[in-house]
Amino acid sequence: MVQVPNIKLNSGHDMPQVGFGLWKVDNAIAADTVYNAIKAGYRLFDGACDYGNEVECGQGVARAIKDGLVKREELFIVSKLWNTFHDGERVEPIVKKQLADWGIDYFDLYLIHFPVALEYVDPSVRYPPGWHYDGKSEIRPSKATIQETWTAMEGLVGKGLAKSIGISNFQSQLIYDLLRYAKIRPATLQIEHHPFLVQQELLNLAKQEGIAVTAYSSFGPASFLEFEMQHAVKLTPLIEDSTIKSIAAKYNRDPSQVLLRWATQRGLAIIPKSTRAQWMASNLASLEFDLSDEDIATITSFNRGIRFNQPSNYFPTEMLWIFG
Amino acid sequence: MVQVPNIKLNSGHDMPQVGFGLWKVDNAIAADTVYNAIKAGYRLFDGACDYGNEVECGQGVARAIKDGLVKREELFIVSKLWNTFHDGERVEPIVKKQLADWGIDYFDLYLIHFPVALEYVDPSVRYPPGWHYDGKSEIRPSKATIQETWTAMEGLVGKGLAKSIGISNFQSQLIYDLLRYAKIRPATLQIEHHPFLVQQELLNLAKQEGIAVTAYSSFGPASFLEFEMQHAVKLTPLIEDSTIKSIAAKYNRDPSQVLLRWATQRGLAIIPKSTRAQWMASNLASLEFDLSDEDIATITSFNRGIRFNQPSNYFPTEMLWIFG
Repeated sequence: MVQVPNIKLNSGHDMPQVGFGLWKVDNAIAADTVYNAIKAGYRLFDGACDYGNEVECGQGVARAIKDGLVKREELFIVSKLWNTFHDGERVEPIVKKQLADWGIDYFDLYLIHFPVALEYVDPSVRYPPGWHYDGKSEIRPSKATIQETWTAMEGLVGKGLAKSIGISNFQSQLIYDLLRYAKIRPATLQIEHHPFLVQQELLNLAKQEGIAVTAYSSFGPASFLEFEMQHAVKLTPLIEDSTIKSIAAKYNRDPSQVLLRWATQRGLAIIPKSTRAQWMASNLASLEFDLSDEDIATITSFNRGIRFNQPSNYFPTEMLWIFG
Repeated sequence: MVQVPNIKLNSGHDMPQVGFGLWKVDNAIAADTVYNAIKAGYRLFDGACDYGNEVECGQGVARAIKDGLVKREELFIVSKLWNTFHDGERVEPIVKKQLADWGIDYFDLYLIHFPVALEYVDPSVRYPPGWHYDGKSEIRPSKATIQETWTAMEGLVGKGLAKSIGISNFQSQLIYDLLRYAKIRPATLQIEHHPFLVQQELLNLAKQEGIAVTAYSSFGPASFLEFEMQHAVKLTPLIEDSTIKSIAAKYNRDPSQVLLRWATQRGLAIIPKSTRAQWMASNLASLEFDLSDEDIATITSFNRGIRFNQPSNYFPTEMLWIFG
């Protein structure tokens, strides 16, 4: 089985550099998918309240542990705080609910999903609550500052509910501000990252500050075609790009492996998703070869500053400023 | 003389939509430049500690008032808090020094120049202090949060030292966070804005939140050629672009007037700089014609998300993440 290297986090804990992303894993197959991914060698699972599949993912974990495939302490389970739970007093209760959903008693890493505080929606009313207060169209900000939320996140570490804490989808200025008041620094930053969106300056900031970076949407627009975003449809998917394909051919690898290896050789953690055994294995096996510096530079030069995780059919119109 | 419309700020005060920018106005000519600009009809002057010319600008104002060209209350004087004065207790003293430099007793608008808190440098040591603690290479962050700084900014309004307060160079996420704790909302946001950097989502957020936006660098890369930035040099300057030129010809105007009118018709305030009487008048006169909606849309479609205010020869390398 492929040996996955660890990244040493500033919290002192080790995080596998390659993990398994749970976004858009259908509930009906989530338990089996997690189980099979563990079988394939994955140890890190990247979940979130908002993905709506934590119960099923936890079932997959429980089965794998029961069958002796893995022990809990060998797994690295990540989850995320949704926007409607930013108020300081809401953080611990929702983490406890999410832990109960997973059937575990701590997260290895717990992230603020977006730096957007929205009004509380009780889980008994709707769960996951999504962006809209009424489930349809109304956006209701809460008064929670990021400092209030981060302070509550720090409390999770003290109580053993999360071994490490971090952030996701934060812009550089907000990270700098958070570092002014953080008593526990974010261990990781999770961001969209692919050859069309290299975000070098943000990566440099993270490096300067000792924050590990996890890339999501490593395959770029391919991940977003289903949302019919205009620019995603227009651009050639990266795995079909002739330059990427010719680099892949040179190493006798798949284009998707080239895209993943490009990220891991740049020092990032990755969380590709696949529901098929063949691709689960292929994504892990991206660690088994090395791109030349020249090929890495060629891929990095694809950068066009194009972001895909903002399609207006799942981001509320009023919130499209989030990366703007 | 051209009638400059006012923008009603959320503070209740009126701000002229066209003003005069004081960045890079040489000390030797700053007093005359301000005096001549007042003569030409400018009432808003956009200064900053960091521009290093507030004493001379104030001399120009004093002469204009003495000569009866204008009264203080007819002027709208803007200044900005430099990064090294973000610590809460440093804000009021430095504003008082800046007011003394100008020879006035209140600013009409006072902005946080950048959302970057750096360690205090005493004005007796070096003024303006710039980015580096030692004046050369050392970056020393301070522990001041934006909340601490904003709270001190709010104190200026209570003491009558600033009629309105605002922010500059803030990204959307940090603005959203600031709005969680602000007791006085920012009246304005000053940002780089030109056809190559439209920032529509950020403008939408400002509009939703009732924050007026002032554009700087309205002529785009032209303003930055002197810094020999690679992309500024490569791109055709906007005032030489054939589309802009043909739109200008249609209205019998200069390309620069087209660029300014595009911004003001989009609802932004502008602060062009010119040291020549002819261009001072021309920039003001950009208010005297209207572009068609179609021409506005054509110019807006120039957007390429290209930012110029980050050249590494005046931004410290460690700080290049600021807009990243």
